[in-house]
Amino acid sequence: MDERIKKQIDFALEIDKEKNIFRQTHLSGHGRNENDAEHAWHMAVMAYLLKEYSDEPVDISRVMIMCLIHDLVEIDAGDTYAYDPEAKATQKEREEAARERIFSILPDDQRDELMGIFDEFEAAETKEARFVRAMDNFQPLILNDSNGGSDWAEHGVDASMVYKRQGATAKGSRILYEITDRIIKENIKRGSLKQGPQEEI
Amino acid sequence: MDERIKKQIDFALEIDKEKNIFRQTHLSGHGRNENDAEHAWHMAVMAYLLKEYSDEPVDISRVMIMCLIHDLVEIDAGDTYAYDPEAKATQKEREEAARERIFSILPDDQRDELMGIFDEFEAAETKEARFVRAMDNFQPLILNDSNGGSDWAEHGVDASMVYKRQGATAKGSRILYEITDRIIKENIKRGSLKQGPQEEI
Repeated sequence: MDERIKKQIDFALEIDKEKNIFRQTHLSGHGRNENDAEHAWHMAVMAYLLKEYSDEPVDISRVMIMCLIHDLVEIDAGDTYAYDPEAKATQKEREEAARERIFSILPDDQRDELMGIFDEFEAAETKEARFVRAMDNFQPLILNDSNGGSDWAEHGVDASMVYKRQGATAKGSRILYEITDRIIKENIKRGSLKQGPQEEI
Repeated sequence: MDERIKKQIDFALEIDKEKNIFRQTHLSGHGRNENDAEHAWHMAVMAYLLKEYSDEPVDISRVMIMCLIHDLVEIDAGDTYAYDPEAKATQKEREEAARERIFSILPDDQRDELMGIFDEFEAAETKEARFVRAMDNFQPLILNDSNGGSDWAEHGVDASMVYKRQGATAKGSRILYEITDRIIKENIKRGSLKQGPQEEI
């Protein structure tokens, strides 16, 4: 087999492992934990359907592939829960090594291309990356809300922590952030989200 | 909340159920059965990376969204194993009802758009649909091959059945069909695929 296509198939088999990286979010209907591949699929479909709410028009092809690959580094680095400060402290270093190993399975041009898309997501400076960040927040938010906010309740998460993370949504979509804000406030009211010192509602 | 965005979020929550539709294919490393959301994610990433092997240049954005939504009807209709003739006989009717119910959760314009993409996939007449069909075959093929062809062995599948199904790959990608043909022949040799009356190798 041609060396190029062999590398591409090796990469395709390697990323199969993302289906075994489980997150803190649970599926709707109080289901099992979600894995990274499912999360990425869900984000990409949602991005396609909600693109009209991006503050700026986006290249939807770039948005979709960014959604699909943004968590591949977690094959080595594992999932880092958004509200786990200890894991957060070592996240960058773990993900940097993973980025190098995993994308380097590809032919050089595609390695560079996917690393570029991953880096663009991480930097969150383009309109596409800001919208993908919004999806990365909004997808688990609606799942968690559909389960009565039980993911937050389980971890004793504080509303101020949620507002800090969800702030990224406001940079990509004003409209989705308004819905986010309403969902957070409802979950404080229903008691699944602890009211932090900064939330006067 | 605005009626339009409410419908979009309702749809996003509905399709979460695709993560619970399990297929006959197993994850690499002799893992558990794969579900439809994981399969769709994997197909979309592979389509992006292997698009150079499409016989004709494709609109990769349309290819990706087609990969991502092509199995949504299985939320109601269930997965139909490619080599189960009884299930195949009722597949069309079950999927038609599901298509109507599931896509109708969306606002009318997006219902029509996604039904159009789904119908295009089913008809397999455009170059994008033919390439997505190739991915729909090639993704489980490489997973199954990585597991020594055990999905075929488990069901006692005959090589002539595999050739019939994989014929769709030849219509989208001559190069990927050559690899497919090689993989089938290797699996006949290793005994995981029964040699049918038509295969003289």
